[in-house]
Amino acid sequence: MSPSYDLQQQLSFITELDKLKAVKRKALIKCDDNRYENSAEHSWHIAMAAQVLHPYAEEPVNLARVTQMLLIHDIVEIDAGDTFAFAEEAGLAAQEAKEEAAANRIFGLLPKQQFGYLKSLFREFEECSSADGRFAKAIDRILPLIQNMQNDGGSWAQHKVKRSAVLARNQYLEGLAPALWEFVQSQIDQATENGWLLNE
Amino acid sequence: MSPSYDLQQQLSFITELDKLKAVKRKALIKCDDNRYENSAEHSWHIAMAAQVLHPYAEEPVNLARVTQMLLIHDIVEIDAGDTFAFAEEAGLAAQEAKEEAAANRIFGLLPKQQFGYLKSLFREFEECSSADGRFAKAIDRILPLIQNMQNDGGSWAQHKVKRSAVLARNQYLEGLAPALWEFVQSQIDQATENGWLLNE
Repeated sequence: MSPSYDLQQQLSFITELDKLKAVKRKALIKCDDNRYENSAEHSWHIAMAAQVLHPYAEEPVNLARVTQMLLIHDIVEIDAGDTFAFAEEAGLAAQEAKEEAAANRIFGLLPKQQFGYLKSLFREFEECSSADGRFAKAIDRILPLIQNMQNDGGSWAQHKVKRSAVLARNQYLEGLAPALWEFVQSQIDQATENGWLLNE
Repeated sequence: MSPSYDLQQQLSFITELDKLKAVKRKALIKCDDNRYENSAEHSWHIAMAAQVLHPYAEEPVNLARVTQMLLIHDIVEIDAGDTFAFAEEAGLAAQEAKEEAAANRIFGLLPKQQFGYLKSLFREFEECSSADGRFAKAIDRILPLIQNMQNDGGSWAQHKVKRSAVLARNQYLEGLAPALWEFVQSQIDQATENGWLLNE
């Protein structure tokens, strides 16, 4: 017996997801021969970070929705590739258009209702249009900082990133999760002192 | 300013999780030079599979809890390594003891309350002691089948796995999610016909 049309669509989506395991990021995995991290394992790691850091949210968040956003937000990279967080502005705008098209194609493999749900979660994350979206975005940004601090400055040091850029990128933690913001500032100070961030 | 004791513990847990990216499974990633899959990206993939397959659960499940179980259930492999699903019984018992110790050490990096929560979720998954746990386990088992069908029999063909073993491993889908069970049976028939499973 062949599976229903819905199940066929869901299976083709699940199969398509395998490709996110081939999308490489800038972070290095120290414990695995310093290879590049891929976006699938990164998505897992930030989903896990949310499980333990959600109590720091000043305004309570819905952890289940935050987790879903973190699980799905990088799927568009299957078509659009990963963009380095500190890339030039012009590149970022073009990337956004590519990601929108990718969301339509990949989530569009699913039955209509599931497509609508995941697409709107994806937009909520991208636009930070809710407390859940803002907290998910903050978690996505704090993990590379934790990784870089563990890895002698990691991608910051490699790409000569400025202290002011990392501060700006994480600043909206200030109202969202003050204890995490204090922690982030202390780490940025330390990284600057260590010469891992340019003091600009 | 240094982070609070709780945050320090949470950060050391988050950092420890990186090691799951170095734990290799038997599945191959076709789109990434046929390298071995690691347990971190696998955990992401099954969490995503649950997002789209949960409507097939006969008895409604709590998707948020199922997702959490799928995200955390392989973390013990950081210490205990991955065991092939069709390994010998004797090996499996020793593995269980190793995983229990690993759960205590790794989840034990967290503040007490979070340790207690994740440890009990892990046990619920391992023991299939709830509808959520059983559904999570079923999803963990169905994904390798989908991957093997996409990959000319994959780890089944490589390790000469018997049809009866795969049927037994997935059979409790029967009451849990009848449509998925029908699909699994049809795939096992197909795999046997293709010579990817031993007809025993």
